[in-house]
Order: sequence, then structure tokens, then C-alpha cells
Amino acid sequence: MAVDTKSLYSLENDVFKVYLTYAVLVVFKMMFLSFYTSFTRISNKIFANREDYGWTYPEEKAKQKIESYKGDERVNRILRCHLNDLENIPAFLIVGLLYVAINPSPYTATMHYRIFAAARYFHCVAYLLPLPQPSRALGFTVGAIVTISMGVQILRAVATF
Amino acid sequence: MAVDTKSLYSLENDVFKVYLTYAVLVVFKMMFLSFYTSFTRISNKIFANREDYGWTYPEEKAKQKIESYKGDERVNRILRCHLNDLENIPAFLIVGLLYVAINPSPYTATMHYRIFAAARYFHCVAYLLPLPQPSRALGFTVGAIVTISMGVQILRAVATF
Amino acid sequence: MAVDTKSLYSLENDVFKVYLTYAVLVVFKMMFLSFYTSFTRISNKIFANREDYGWTYPEEKAKQKIESYKGDERVNRILRCHLNDLENIPAFLIVGLLYVAINPSPYTATMHYRIFAAARYFHCVAYLLPLPQPSRALGFTVGAIVTISMGVQILRAVATF
Repeated sequence: MAVDTKSLYSLENDVFKVYLTYAVLVVFKMMFLSFYTSFTRISNKIFANREDYGWTYPEEKAKQKIESYKGDERVNRILRCHLNDLENIPAFLIVGLLYVAINPSPYTATMHYRIFAAARYFHCVAYLLPLPQPSRALGFTVGAIVTISMGVQILRAVATF
Repeated sequence: MAVDTKSLYSLENDVFKVYLTYAVLVVFKMMFLSFYTSFTRISNKIFANREDYGWTYPEEKAKQKIESYKGDERVNRILRCHLNDLENIPAFLIVGLLYVAINPSPYTATMHYRIFAAARYFHCVAYLLPLPQPSRALGFTVGAIVTISMGVQILRAVATF
Repeated sequence: MAVDTKSLYSLENDVFKVYLTYAVLVVFKMMFLSFYTSFTRISNKIFANREDYGWTYPEEKAKQKIESYKGDERVNRILRCHLNDLENIPAFLIVGLLYVAINPSPYTATMHYRIFAAARYFHCVAYLLPLPQPSRALGFTVGAIVTISMGVQILRAVATF
């Protein structure tokens, strides 16, 4: 690699640029679920908070609705999908960022970032449609393997306790 | 900008210093909710785990309490507020950090960080009091727009697939 | 410190190498809980999604099972442990990474990273076994104090609003 190690975290390093691209793409995918949850709640009037029904809405009726909608699959499926993102995407974002520090080959690094992003987009589609299993399990597993692979490479390169 | 691109992630770069400041402030806000949850659980004896009632507490009674408190709004409202943080703050922390790499003007960057932090502090107050809607929705939306704005600027500057 | 401030985020900086090591170790710990949840769900056939029972499984029976297992402690205890990780580990990962920028002494920094990692591994064991309280509370609190300590040092070194 021709990159000076002092500029690994700069736009002079192609690996970092690829990371930046896919990091933003997976954050956008994760944020899409926030908006999709809001959209589903509003269009179906399925709220979790009393104030979301408006202050003129009868207190008792709001409480009943909140209770009756607690197990609603339209919202809960999105929430479970979102929670799975929270368990996996921030971990990838950090490990993927740290991976840049060990100066991997651009090809290897790009494949890691690309496969993770593709796996998580696929996981999301598989969860929301839903697709028959093991689609979702595959999306999750492939993403996790990418993060683990980068983590193992980092430990091998630098482990200092 | 006078900053050498090799030192973007150093204290020589004012944008990075501003990011450091607001990153810590929003992390502290998020962590406040952990302590507030613990405080609410302990002061009201609303626990989710059998061992939290102490080993001398009767097994059956502990189970009943856990069951009866599952929908308790005193704790669940804080948990929902906290979950919303988890969906938004780590995404901001990463995207805000990567935003430094494209060397934005200090004014633009500072406004992004400041507005996000203000929006999330406001979101938290609006959720916990609660304030009438659309206060909370506003806090969430403004924060999300800041993260999206930084993400779009990053993609425009570096997109490399 | 002999480290050029331009190379803080490179393998020339021992503090960064220690951070890399512990960051990956806590991410691996967090990811272990994803796999442990899957393992527990599959080995006990406790699923949250209709498609996880397979398409040949009767619709009604799947729904009943999902409903009846909603409060199952075997899975829910792991989920609560995992959620606590999500509330604490990404915050540490970011603040710990930013802490490198203020160039702390290697001894101080190493102790911060080590204690956090030890506290979170202990928290996980204390949650899953479970150990009597205040074991779990101790694990959580020590971890949180480390993150706060690093955050305060960052603010003292750079606060720029």
C-alpha cells in the first residue's frame, strides 16, 4: 500500500473512502426503519404514548388503545427488525472503522464492507416482507461473520492488553 | 481551511474539537437515562429480574410483582425514550465523526453538531414530562435531519463503491 | 508522550492499539449475546416470528406459541442483558475512541479500557447466571464510571461549543 500510515483516516486512503460510503449507506438503512415505524404508527393510529393521541382524545380510550395495540404485529415486526439493526450495525460501524487502521488491502476491505451492507439490506427485506426462513437468518449471519472477520484481523494485527 | 488533511482527527482541527464536545454531551444525555431508569426502578421497587428483589424475598411474590409491573408507565416511558436514543445517537456519533473527514467549514459543522445535541436534549425533555405533541416528533425529526444532512454531504464528497 | 499528534490514530500509538484490542473484545462479547439468543430460541423452539416456525407449521398454532412465549424468561433475560449492552457498549466504543485524541498516558488509558471490558464481561455473567445483586449493578456501574471518566477528561481537554 502506498498510503502513509499517518493519513489512513483521510480521503487520501481509498479504503477509508469505501468505508465512509458503506457506513453512511447502512446508517441510512437503519434510519429508514425509524421513519417506517412512525409512518406505520401514524397511518394506523397505533401509538405507544398517551400524548400521541392528542390532548383532546379521551384519556380512558387512549389507554385502552395503547393496551390493545401492544402486541400489534404491524409495528412490532418493524421494531424487532430495528432492534436487530441496533445489535449489529453500530458494532460493524466501529469495527469497520478500526479495520482501516490495520491498512487492509483495498480489495479485501471493500469486499468486507460491501458484503456487510448487502447482507443487512437483505436482512431488512427478509424481515419486513417477510421472506421464508432461513432468509433472515442468512442475512444476519453473513453480516455477523463480516464483523467477526474484521475483528479477528484487528486482534491478530495489534492485540495489546 | 488551513488544516492539514493528515491532522483532521487531531486537536489541531477545530471541527474535531467541536465534535468531541457535542459527542460527549449527547453520550452523557443518553447515559443519564440508564441512571434515571435505575433510580425509578429502585425508588418504586419495580424490577424486571427476580434477583433484584433480594434472595430472601418470596419467589412467588417476586414473580407476581414482575408480571404486574410489566406495563408500568413510570419505567416504560423512560425505556422508550432510551430506545429512541439508541436508534439515533450512535448513528449521529459515527456519521458526525466521519463528517470531520470531508473537512467541512467550522461554521457548518458546528451548527450541525449543536442542532443535533439541542434536538436530542429537547426530545428527551418532551418525552419524559411529557410535552404535548408534536414536541417529541420535532426533536426526533430535527435530529434525524442533521444526521441525514451530514450523511448526504459525505456521500457527495467521497462515494466510492 | 513521544507520539506525534498526527499519528494518534495509527498503530504507532500504543494507546490506540490497546483501544483496538479492548474495543474488539467488547464487541465480540456483545455479539455473543446475539448468537446465544438464537441458540436459545432454536433449541427451545421459542420464536417471535411466524415464519420461524416454518411455512408448513399451522398458522394458528404458531400464533398461540408466539403469544404464550412472550414472557419467557429463558429468552427475555438474554434480551435484557443485550439491551443493557446496547445502552453502554456503543457509548464506550465512541468515547474510548475519542479519548485517544487527547493523548492520555498509556497507563491511564489502558486501565480505563481494561476496567470497562472486565466490568462488562462480569455484568454479562452476573446477568445470565444470575449472580445475586449487587453483582450486576456493580458491573453496570463500574462500566458507566469508566465511560464518564473518559468523557469528563475529553471535555476538560477540548470543550469547544
